This record gives sequence, C-alpha cells and structure tokens, in this order.
Amino acid sequence: MIKAVVFDAYGTLFDVQSVADATERAYPGRGEYITQVWRQKQLEYSWLRALMGRYADFWGVTREALAYTLGTLGLEPDESFLADMAQAYNRLTPYPDAAQCLAELAPLKRAILSNGAPDMLQALVANAGLTDSFDAVISVDAKRVFKPHPDSYALVEEVLGVTPAEVLFVSSNGFDVGGAKNFGFSVARVARLSQEALARELVSGTIAPLTMFKALRMREETYAEAPDFVVPALGDLPRLVRGMAGAHLAPAV
Amino acid sequence: MIKAVVFDAYGTLFDVQSVADATERAYPGRGEYITQVWRQKQLEYSWLRALMGRYADFWGVTREALAYTLGTLGLEPDESFLADMAQAYNRLTPYPDAAQCLAELAPLKRAILSNGAPDMLQALVANAGLTDSFDAVISVDAKRVFKPHPDSYALVEEVLGVTPAEVLFVSSNGFDVGGAKNFGFSVARVARLSQEALARELVSGTIAPLTMFKALRMREETYAEAPDFVVPALGDLPRLVRGMAGAHLAPAV
Repeated sequence: MIKAVVFDAYGTLFDVQSVADATERAYPGRGEYITQVWRQKQLEYSWLRALMGRYADFWGVTREALAYTLGTLGLEPDESFLADMAQAYNRLTPYPDAAQCLAELAPLKRAILSNGAPDMLQALVANAGLTDSFDAVISVDAKRVFKPHPDSYALVEEVLGVTPAEVLFVSSNGFDVGGAKNFGFSVARVARLSQEALARELVSGTIAPLTMFKALRMREETYAEAPDFVVPALGDLPRLVRGMAGAHLAPAV
Repeated sequence: MIKAVVFDAYGTLFDVQSVADATERAYPGRGEYITQVWRQKQLEYSWLRALMGRYADFWGVTREALAYTLGTLGLEPDESFLADMAQAYNRLTPYPDAAQCLAELAPLKRAILSNGAPDMLQALVANAGLTDSFDAVISVDAKRVFKPHPDSYALVEEVLGVTPAEVLFVSSNGFDVGGAKNFGFSVARVARLSQEALARELVSGTIAPLTMFKALRMREETYAEAPDFVVPALGDLPRLVRGMAGAHLAPAV
C-alpha cells in the first residue's frame, strides 16, 4: 500500500530551463547553450565525484559546472559572479501543476529526495511558496553521495519511516527512475516530451543545444529498469495514485 | 622515476569519431548526430551502472547506448543490427602518431588501461596492428567497475608491478585525467582541441552535434585536479618523458 509519494526536485517539480533567463541576461545570445551544458555537467559532476569518492555538495558541483560551461566560451568570471549566477538554481520556476498535484495527494506523506544541498532545497521550496506542501525535504547530502547510488534512496525509509514497497517515487530524470527502481520503489516517470515529438524535433534541420539536451536527458535510459507508470504531467499523478491498491486520498477536488 | 606509460584507449589512442563512417552508412544524414550521442551515453551508462552497483561490461554498455541513441530518432533496430554496428568500436582508427609514439617510449613498460571489455580491446588493438606495442592491455572488467572509480586504476599496479609514482598515465578524457590524478598517477593530458579553437567554433553560428560533443568532452573538468602535463598530440610524449627525471628511453630516432 502506498503511504508516501516522494519527488525528485530538479526537472521534476522545478523547471531547470528557467535558469535561461539568468544566463541570457548575463550573456546575451548564449543563454540557451549555457543552460544546457551547465545542467549536463552539473549531473556529470555529481556522478563522477560520487564514483571517485570525492563528494562535494551540489552547491559546489553547480558552481564547478557553471565554471566549466563558461570556460568553453573562453569566459572566466570570478567566484562571486559564479555564486550569483548559481543562485538561479535556488529560484527555479515550479511546474504550473506542481502545487495542485501536491495538495491533491494529501493525506499521503509527500516529500522531496534530491541531490540538492540542504540550503539549496530550502531556498528552492520557499521561493516557490511550497514549504507547507511537504512532510520532508530530503537532501542526499546526509549520505555524502549522489543519486543513483542506492544509499541516497535509503534516506526515504530513514526519514519518513516507510518501507520501499510503501513509496511511489516520481521523477522526470531517466537515471533517477533507474536508480529508484534499482532500490525497490514503485516509480512513476513524468514524461513531458513524447518520443514522437523528440524524433520530429531531431529530424527538422539543425539541432539546437536545447534539442540536444532533450535527446540526452528526456528519454528512458535503456540500461535501467522501466518505470511502473508513465504520466505526461504532474497533474496526472493524483488520479494514478487513487487507482493504486489501498492508496487512501482525500476525495478528488 | 617513471617505469611505465599507461594509456587510455577510446579517444586517446583511438579516434572515437571514426565510427561516423559506420553510422552515416547505416543512417545517411544522421551519422554525426548518432556518433556524438552514442559516445556520450556510452560514457554516462558506464558511470551510472558503476554508481548504481549494476556493472555490465562495456560491450553491453556500448549496445545499450546505441539503442538509446537510435531510439531518440524513433528507430528500434533488432539486437543483431545493434551488435553489427557496435563492432565499429572494435575497428576504431588509431591516431596517426600512436604507433611511432609507442615505439619511441621503449624500453619503458607500455600498457592500456581502458573501460573496454577484454574482447573489445584485443580486437581494437589487433585491428590497428598494435598488439606488439604493449606489455599489457588491461580491461577494468577484472574489477567489475568503470573509471574513474579508484579500483580500476589499481589494476595497473597489480598487472605491471609498478607503484603509482612510477606511472605516467595518458588520457584525452577529462574525467579520466581527474580519476588518474585522484589515484596518484602522474598524468599527461592529450589536448587536441585548444580552448581558443573551441570558443571560436562555439561562437560561429549554429552549434553542430560534433561541436556540442567537443564542448562537453574536450576540456579539463573543473571538479578534478589538473594534469601534470598537457601535450597537443601523442607524438609529443616521448620528448616529455625523456625530460622526466630518471626516465631512460632509447635514444630519440
């Protein structure tokens, strides 16, 4: 029986593309490129640091990834500029259906499990006005490792007091879907880009950096187990959860 | 004192872009895109599988990454087609200065340490006529983990009987440079693309998939330690090694 719905933050509840305002303002004409490479390297650096046993929190990883990205353009801003720009990751726009989805999932436990550092997640949730929507906001920082390492998912059990079988994990990120399945959660993937739409975009002439990002990040990963459920948007989750055996939600509004 | 020079294979001794002949032949007009996403996902899947504790050898990872890549285009070839295409990774073109560089490094021990599966590496080296150029061809498969995990670099000591301080590790891949430094080797990075050349390519209009790949993969990683040496080509290594304290090479030819 599902007792808790646990969400990934970046790319699932919050739109990582919303940093493009800040990157375009800082470097007109380069915003789209910087946004995609920054996010890609942010993920890579979390995986590579974890694999090397050289953990640094996601705030450090986010600034390192930004420094790399700007370096490809021959730009070498100072540390304070990097920190200012990286603040954009604390002010990401929540997806428009996030708040309603979370409200409709009551009285189930609702939590975030994210690679974000604790301060980043507190700011992210507060800036979006969602602080009261969660029973817990869990950072992998407590384990000094990053998803998809199994230890990161073990935090859900420790913090919420639920077994893996009682958890529905929700993510848009393929590697996270694979990690959560590998750990033993039921998993719903939020697939906002259909296969057909991606293929159309890829065969329609030059491939923009955003399209390259979608191709790299917005499909299920073939090395990993498939999710149990796929929904096109967060707004579809309450109906899905209502249909799950034993899940007791408040009546649909 | 340097007693062994150990090389990464894919992208360092062998040109991963040389699969583009096979991908373009199979999917005219899509070859460049497929080549870049295939290689990027091949690396990602090795990192993610290692981080999740779900090792599969590089041959499996290479086919999974190809299936993902073709899937983005809405293509779903059968397993035998995937295996045929993946053979392209066993016939990569060696860089033109590889053989001469290896010859000039005698009598130092020369080896490969690669994520490649044993059969892949044997075929790769044999197809390039370089089998006799190495004292050892070492696959991380023996440790069932991938670089940059420290256990993979420990194989050099076990197979060649040299201490980390006696090894010069050579790679073009930033994550591998970081992993080898993290382990304790002296490291030379082969930087075939200068920072200025990359920046010029990035600011000259639309960003092709190959340029996006260069931006993601052909710079030093900011999270990792810097290499001890940077050379523009393999051909510069013998002179570098001659200049290293105590390294006894055959006289320059």
